[in-house]
Formats: sequence, structure tokens, C-alpha cells
Amino acid sequence: MKNFSIFKTTAKVFNDYPTYSRILFLFTVSSGGMVAYSEYQTGRGPQNIENKHMEPKKKKMVVLGTGWAGISFIKDLDPSIYDVKVVSPRNYFAFTPLLPSVTCGTVEARSVVEPIRNILKKRTGEIKFCEAECTKIDLANKKIHCKSTFENGPVPHRDFSLEFDYLVIAVGAQANTFNTPGVSEHCHFLKEVEDAQRIRRSVIDCFEQAALPDLSEEEKRKNLHFVVVGGGPTGVEFAAELHDYIVEDLVKLYPGVKELVKITVIQSGDHILNTFDERISMFAEKKFSRDGIELLTGCRVVNVSDNLITMNVKAIGKVHDVPYGMVVWSTGVGTRPIVRDFMEQIGQGHRHVLATDEWLRVKGCDDVFAIGDCASVDQRKIIDDITMIFAAADKDKSGTLSVQEFQDVIDDILVRYPQVDLYLKSHHMKDLRDLLRDAEGNEMEVDIEGFKSALLHVDSQMKSLPATAQVAAQQGIYLSRCFNRLDECKANPEGPRRFRGSGRHTFLPFRYKHFGQFAPLGGEQTAAELPGDWVSMGYSTQWLWYSVYASKQVSWRTRTLVVSDWIRRSIFGRDSSRI
Amino acid sequence: MKNFSIFKTTAKVFNDYPTYSRILFLFTVSSGGMVAYSEYQTGRGPQNIENKHMEPKKKKMVVLGTGWAGISFIKDLDPSIYDVKVVSPRNYFAFTPLLPSVTCGTVEARSVVEPIRNILKKRTGEIKFCEAECTKIDLANKKIHCKSTFENGPVPHRDFSLEFDYLVIAVGAQANTFNTPGVSEHCHFLKEVEDAQRIRRSVIDCFEQAALPDLSEEEKRKNLHFVVVGGGPTGVEFAAELHDYIVEDLVKLYPGVKELVKITVIQSGDHILNTFDERISMFAEKKFSRDGIELLTGCRVVNVSDNLITMNVKAIGKVHDVPYGMVVWSTGVGTRPIVRDFMEQIGQGHRHVLATDEWLRVKGCDDVFAIGDCASVDQRKIIDDITMIFAAADKDKSGTLSVQEFQDVIDDILVRYPQVDLYLKSHHMKDLRDLLRDAEGNEMEVDIEGFKSALLHVDSQMKSLPATAQVAAQQGIYLSRCFNRLDECKANPEGPRRFRGSGRHTFLPFRYKHFGQFAPLGGEQTAAELPGDWVSMGYSTQWLWYSVYASKQVSWRTRTLVVSDWIRRSIFGRDSSRI
Repeated sequence: MKNFSIFKTTAKVFNDYPTYSRILFLFTVSSGGMVAYSEYQTGRGPQNIENKHMEPKKKKMVVLGTGWAGISFIKDLDPSIYDVKVVSPRNYFAFTPLLPSVTCGTVEARSVVEPIRNILKKRTGEIKFCEAECTKIDLANKKIHCKSTFENGPVPHRDFSLEFDYLVIAVGAQANTFNTPGVSEHCHFLKEVEDAQRIRRSVIDCFEQAALPDLSEEEKRKNLHFVVVGGGPTGVEFAAELHDYIVEDLVKLYPGVKELVKITVIQSGDHILNTFDERISMFAEKKFSRDGIELLTGCRVVNVSDNLITMNVKAIGKVHDVPYGMVVWSTGVGTRPIVRDFMEQIGQGHRHVLATDEWLRVKGCDDVFAIGDCASVDQRKIIDDITMIFAAADKDKSGTLSVQEFQDVIDDILVRYPQVDLYLKSHHMKDLRDLLRDAEGNEMEVDIEGFKSALLHVDSQMKSLPATAQVAAQQGIYLSRCFNRLDECKANPEGPRRFRGSGRHTFLPFRYKHFGQFAPLGGEQTAAELPGDWVSMGYSTQWLWYSVYASKQVSWRTRTLVVSDWIRRSIFGRDSSRI
Repeated sequence: MKNFSIFKTTAKVFNDYPTYSRILFLFTVSSGGMVAYSEYQTGRGPQNIENKHMEPKKKKMVVLGTGWAGISFIKDLDPSIYDVKVVSPRNYFAFTPLLPSVTCGTVEARSVVEPIRNILKKRTGEIKFCEAECTKIDLANKKIHCKSTFENGPVPHRDFSLEFDYLVIAVGAQANTFNTPGVSEHCHFLKEVEDAQRIRRSVIDCFEQAALPDLSEEEKRKNLHFVVVGGGPTGVEFAAELHDYIVEDLVKLYPGVKELVKITVIQSGDHILNTFDERISMFAEKKFSRDGIELLTGCRVVNVSDNLITMNVKAIGKVHDVPYGMVVWSTGVGTRPIVRDFMEQIGQGHRHVLATDEWLRVKGCDDVFAIGDCASVDQRKIIDDITMIFAAADKDKSGTLSVQEFQDVIDDILVRYPQVDLYLKSHHMKDLRDLLRDAEGNEMEVDIEGFKSALLHVDSQMKSLPATAQVAAQQGIYLSRCFNRLDECKANPEGPRRFRGSGRHTFLPFRYKHFGQFAPLGGEQTAAELPGDWVSMGYSTQWLWYSVYASKQVSWRTRTLVVSDWIRRSIFGRDSSRI
């Protein structure tokens, strides 16, 4: 996600000089490509030669999943050090941020996927891929059990197991139905490429169905009522894409439906895109209202039957039924069965994602790591370690801490407890030492109680990371770098000092860097939230979106395909064949 | 299929000056496009204005099917004369000759389909499309019964019926299993776009399966054994595509499989491509043997189990079992249930396709027409009409026919009985009057017996038309022209004189014009059979194939997509993601 760092400047230029955007777009596409290509070339090469001599020593590593986290991990991993096996039911990586575009054919499904074996190509000899689903993690015996998932063929299912020394769980998440009755049976989800393909067919089905003879207007309206449950980025982007698809393409092909078609977004909160800046939220709501997309905020869906959605409307405190033609359910992430099962084994059964420490190691398991949507970093509270920190800092064992003594541990604290930095920023302090100043700004010596009270509110700044591609990719890259330098860092630890225990941590803890976030709103308009308090909205941001998404593609093939899909769409429109 | 007429010259140039082929290719693509576009523009326009005044008089026409026959029919039909409804379970037209390319991703599925509503676009108001399957033709009440075919949605199935004054059956055919046990359960067919997509996934499945851990070499070999049953053009092209796919792309991604993979073509006859010229047959067999594609000729498959194909080997007179990974069954066309049911209603239950007269009207039904693979023209034998012809020609009722008298009916005979022309050609006669000459070349008068014996062997030249896209398209065009000029031709019949009965036939009978046929053999080599005794084989013919297939696309959109797919394949190879 490096290219996001040029966001601010680029978007500024885009807004000030919108006419430059097309040129910049092309430039970014190509340069982004160059970056990606050079990234692709690194991490290969000389290690492979030493390969054979080290064979017997190699530790067995199993990676589960080939999404953002898994692929970012594998891509940079040095296969000369580990004997790597990747297990996933999908033999491809999907560029998930473009899935909403796939639902309406703005981009083709095949343009957003890249075969794993293509990504591994020149190192296939070292990294092995198995198209199978992991059904059970057997931690005690350091084994996983897998089942092949082929639909047909002479050997339909095949069970096998793999041993591991290290296990990296990157299986992602599944749609979260919140156990709402009828959702799994009647709703579409939007997590996988197949989901997007199904939605595409289903949209066309609704239109074809409404065009059959002898339908009453009410039946037609029902067939053409598209409901999106969940006002997050995915749901909103899908609603926007669908609106474009209908207005730009389908109304020309299905005469007389224009007045009958309706899109509704149901959101339990008071606003859509509520994880975004308020300005974006407002902008999106205004745009949707201009487009005629109905927003039902403060409504919680309680049941979905084969033709009715039932929801609880907070404002009136009553339930309300709505007939529908198609529902897309997009309300956040749920736990996959394999993760649920593993969490119960390790005493995390009460959680909905795996808890890891700041080095992405699953809590309570030495050699198991978890990255991406199936995990969340359980950041250690500074208040839990406060006596240890005090003891470590109080070198003269005086029972009080001077600013001078505090100075020595500041760097380690900042690295180990990232919430401290956020706390300082939110309180407009420049330096951790400011915590040890009195109201007049004089430095003071504190005892343990004083130290505790100075740091008492720091932990309130802890935030869990969002379940996004950006987080998953950064975690994958981080973890592979750790594994690549394991021996080196064991000898020379690079991490902060251990306040509980002695010595230093082997690695620096994982630190997420937020490069911004897009919310495409249809009609060639996009909103973008950038690091800091920066927000960009409108047509020029759409061009920024095009260039960033093109440059972020995993291969030259997909980049070419995605860009040519966009061009094809602008010339010929979207295809409405039901395949 | 007009462009086939430039075949001979073009192919000659291609062979003599192969370096020109690329330029010519581009030229043909664009010019072919222009032709197609101008074709697309015709048949619209002024008629639409008179539309409303004629509304009450319009006869109801129902068209079943949107394949080659159906689309060619609809595209040229004048909707100001008829109230047209098109019923098909697929809302798109598929360019079926490219289906073998779709099975391996040389061309994407979506590049070969065009939505019906796009084709009808500007006349949608007049021609209505219903995505549904016709379940029953009720001839007595002039009605058809239909069922909608949507997979999901709140109104899953909907039955309705449509009345018709004219019915055009163009539903095509389905795969013919010859009732071989296990075929429907275990084999892939290659008739629909979905079949091609399934085959593509299945090929990848076989490779992924063979790459799973703990498989014996025997199991791997079995998984990687691809069997094609049927050595016709489709089967051969699929085998060739698959070979290219494996050799050019898959062996790079699946290391170690090169030695294990095998393609076998099973053919019940003695040669593959036996409907083609013998030289092409030989060329294909040699190429396949160089490529390592095994040909089992003279073998008839008698059973397919979940992992074994059992066949009868003629040469040794024994049955033989072969383990397989995937089977594609491509042995010709079978009857669709709706056609079977209709044939039983009209006393054609013993046939496998609908019999029509030479004007494509279903025999025994006044207002029902059948075109494409579901029908075959039952050409009237001249010998059945011989006494009528004699009576009509013998104007002076002398009981004998002079060459002079014969002269008067020659044109009508040639039009009404095309086998006469073929007979003359095969006997190197220039003129029908040659039949009435004796051994010395003198004209003679014949009586009815003499006339019969002169024409006795003419009917041996009758051939039924092949079940190809070319025939279907020509029939569709022919029939729509008849319907467009129905009133005009009823007033001034253009057909030959009626020998049984008086007056003339309203229209000229349908006459098929063969423009040639391609057989792509993989490795950028294609064989082409051209009208006459002309045959072209090799690399340059592949370029001819590219240009003809590009120019024959139904829309600019598909043309662009197909050409860009070919370019994409040559740069990036074929995608192996299992979606």
C-alpha cells in the first residue's frame, strides 16, 4: 500500500487542476505497475542456490489462505529457509476491493483474480500449493487436516494431513448474519468472487423476471426492488454500482422499468459510511438522495423470508415488512468454522476473531500466527505493566522516577505501547515527558502512584484495527519479514526491551499505517478519506481511485485487464448476458 | 457468412505471401466489422412509423430459441408486419464456434455472448423477449406453454402461455449420448457456454487434484488423463485447444506433470474429421500424433463409470477399460424434449429432428416453421413427382417428351429439385437436356418410362444438411426474408411451378450455400475446407481463421473483446484461476 503515501499531494493536485487527472492517471498506472513489478522481482534469486544443502534443516511452514494476508505473506517469504505449503480452497488471489464492480460487470471476475501458482511461479519448487480446505487444526500434534474441494472428477474428495512447525492462519472471515433468520437462505453476500458472479446473474434475473408477460405492476415493483442491508463501504459501493448499471445500461434494454425499479439501503446506525469522516457520510447521503436510492437508517433487519424483509424501525419502535426482488447482506465479518473450532481448542471460544499479540502470534500458541480478517491484535495495556515499567525505569531503586530516569525507557514504551503516541497526539503533547510535568510545566519526580495516574488514561486510545485489505496486506508483509530474519534477529534482537522479563523482544511489534480509504459513490464520483483530517470528494477523486486501484493490482495481467475493462465499459457499457 | 466467398483468393494470397497475413488480418477484422455493422443498420427505419395504424391486423409470431437460427431470423425480420415474441431460456446469443476456445480460456465466455436485448435494442418495443423455456407446443390451440427458469428470487417459477399465428422453432439440439450408460452423469458436453465454463474449471480441478500430497504416480496419471469422445470438428478442436493450454501454460505452473498428462481422442470411425476432405483428416491425424495426442479409432464407448471408460475395440473385438480424469462427450446432436414431444404430436415420432419442406415449414403443420439443428429439410424426390412433371411438360399430350418440351420445365425442375444440379455436376453434364441424349449425343424423344429411367439415379445425390452454424444462419435469414415479403409474394409468386397442383410456389425454396469450414488443430495451425475441392492447411490458415471469426462476430463489442482476448492470451497466456 505504499502508493497511498502520495495521496495527499496527488489528490490536492487533482482537485486544483482536474484537467491533469487523465495524464496523471496514465502515469500512475504505469509507474504503479513498475513498483509492483520491481516488488515482484525482489525476494527471489540467490537464496535458491543454497537450497539443497539446507534441505534437512528446513522447518515446515503451513500457510492457510490465499487472500490479502496470505498472499502478502507468501510473496515476500524466503523459501530457502522454510519448507512452505500453502493450503486454500481457492487456487487464486482475488483483488477484493473491486468485487462490487464485478457484481455489475464494470470489471470482469477474471480481471480481478490471479492464480496462486502464477504468483509463486518461479519458486513453485519450494513453495507448494494445495487446493483444499483445512477442516481441523490439531495443535497438540502440530498437524492440520484437509479435504479437497473438487466438485466433480473421479476422486471427488480426498482427505490428507500436513505437519507443521509454524502455522500461519490467514483464512479470512465469512459474512456475519448475526443469526438473523432467513439470511443464509435468501440473501446474497459479497465476500467471494463467486458471490459477485451470483449477484450479477441475480440482478439480470430480476429484470428478466419483471419483463415476463402477465405480471401486475405490483409484482414488477417487487421484482425490481433491490435491497442492500448494511451501510458500510461494501454495501454503499454495491448500491452505487447497481444504480449506475441500471441507469446507464439496463433501462435502455428493459423498456418501461425505469419507473418501477428501486434501490434501498438499510442501515442499523443513524448514518451510512459511519466509519468514515462525517463529511463523507453527508456527501454520500446527499448523493444517494439525489440518485433516488432510498436510505432507511435506524432500521435493524430481524427476519428475511422468501419475499419479505422484516425490520425493526427504531424511530417508531415497530416492525415493518418490505417486499423485495433481491437482497445483498453486507454487515461485517463473521467467524469461519475452522477458526471457531481452533478458538475453542485454545480457550478463545468467547471471541469472534483470533486474538494475537503485537507480533501477530496467536495468544497461547507458540508457533501459530494469525493475520488478516480472522485475527485481531490484542494490544497490551500499559496499565497492566505499569509496575514493571516503573521498576525497570527506577534504576536507583529510589521508589520515585525522575524525568531523567523516565527518558531511558521512553523509546521502548513508545514502540511497545502505540496507544501512548496516540494519547500524546490527542492531547497535543509533543513528548512523553510532558506527562511528568505539573500544571506549570515543571518536571516532577513521581512515585508509583503518581506514575500510574499520569498514564491512567493512555489505554483509552487503544483501537482495534479494521477488517480491511490494507491491514491484512501490511500484516502479511510484516510477518514474512520477521520470518525471513528470524535467525538474524534472534542473535540481535531489534524489538523493545521486555519490561516483564529480561532482554529485548526479537522483533519490533507490528504497527499499522493507515494510508486512507475510498468510498466510490457511483456516477464517476468517489469520496476518499486520507491520513490526517484530509478528505477528497467528487469526480477527480474517482480518477485518483482509478489510478490507485490500477497500480495496486497484483500482476501486469490483471492490471491490463482491469484497465481495459474500464475502457470497454465506457465504450460499450456493461454486458447483461446472464452467464 | 458472406465473407467466406473471399476465401479462395484470400487463402491463396495467405499461402503465397504469408508475411502479408497480419496486415490482411487487421484489414479483414475492420472491414468485416463494417459489413456486420451495415447489416445491423439495415432492416430498421421507416417501417416503424406506420406501426400504430397496422396494430390490429398484425399476426402473432412466436420464435423459440436465440441461437444461430433464431437470431439470424429475428435480426432481419420486419417487426412492423408481425407482433413478435421471442422465448428462450438464455437471454443472450452465443457465438458457438468459439466455445472450444472458451473451454481453455483462450477466449473468455463473456466475449462470445451478446445479450438478445442488445441485438433487438432499438426495436424492443416491437419484438418482445421472454427469458423462459417452452415446455409444450399446443398445435391444436395454437399456443405454447412456457416456464420461467430463474434460479432464485422471490418468484422462482412462473408458468405462462403465448398464442401464435406463426411459430418458428429454432431451439437447437442437445448432446446425443446414444443412451450410453453413465454419459449424462460423468461426461462433460460442449453445447452451451455454461458447458465450456464447467470444462474449464474441471481441467484445472484435474491438475490441482494431481498436485495434492500423497498421490501415487498411477493416481496422478489417472487424474491427468483427458478423454474426448468423438472425432468431429468440436471434439478435435477441443483436444487441440487443451493440448495448447497444457503445453503453453499449465506445465509451467504445475511442475512435474508434463510426463504424466495425456489426451486421448476416441472415435468410432476409422478417421477423425471424417466429414472433412481426406487430406485434412490425414493432416490432423499426423499433427495429433506429433503432439502426442492419442487417437483411438474404431472404438465405441459402451459405458462410462465414475472413473473408467469402457469401450468396444473393433479391431480386437473386445471391450477395454481406461481410467480417466475428465471426459468430454462430443458425438453429434440429439433431440430436445420439447421437439421430441412436438414430433410425437404431429406423427414424426420416429425421427430425431423435425422434418420440414423445402420452404422450412414443418411437414404437416401449416403455420409452424423449424430452422437450425432441430430441423432438417426433407427434400422431395424427383422420382415421386415424375409422372406429374412428365404430364406438365408434355404439352401436346402426345405421351412422349421432346427436348423442346422438356426445355420449358428445366428451370423449374432445377429450382425445385436441387439434387438434379448435383447429379449433372457429378456426371460432368452441362445441361439437363443431356439426360435426353443417346450414346451418340443425339436428342431423343422419351416416353414416361424413358423419362423415369433417365432421371432414376438423380435422387441418389440428395444429402441432408449438416448441423452447423452456417446452415442455421442461412435458414434464419431465408425465412425472415420470406416473412418480410409474404404479402408481396402471395400476389406475385416467385417460386417454381407446382407440378402437383396449379400455379407457382410463393417463394423460391431454401437453398444452402456452403462457404467452407475450419478445423483448428492447435499450435497456431488450422485446416480449412473451401467450396470446390480446395483445401488450406497450416499457420497461414490460422490467420485466415482469426480474421473470419473476428469479422463474423455479432457486435462490435464482442469483436473487440474476442480480438483483445487473443492478444491478451499471446502476451499473458491463459488464466488458470478456478472461477
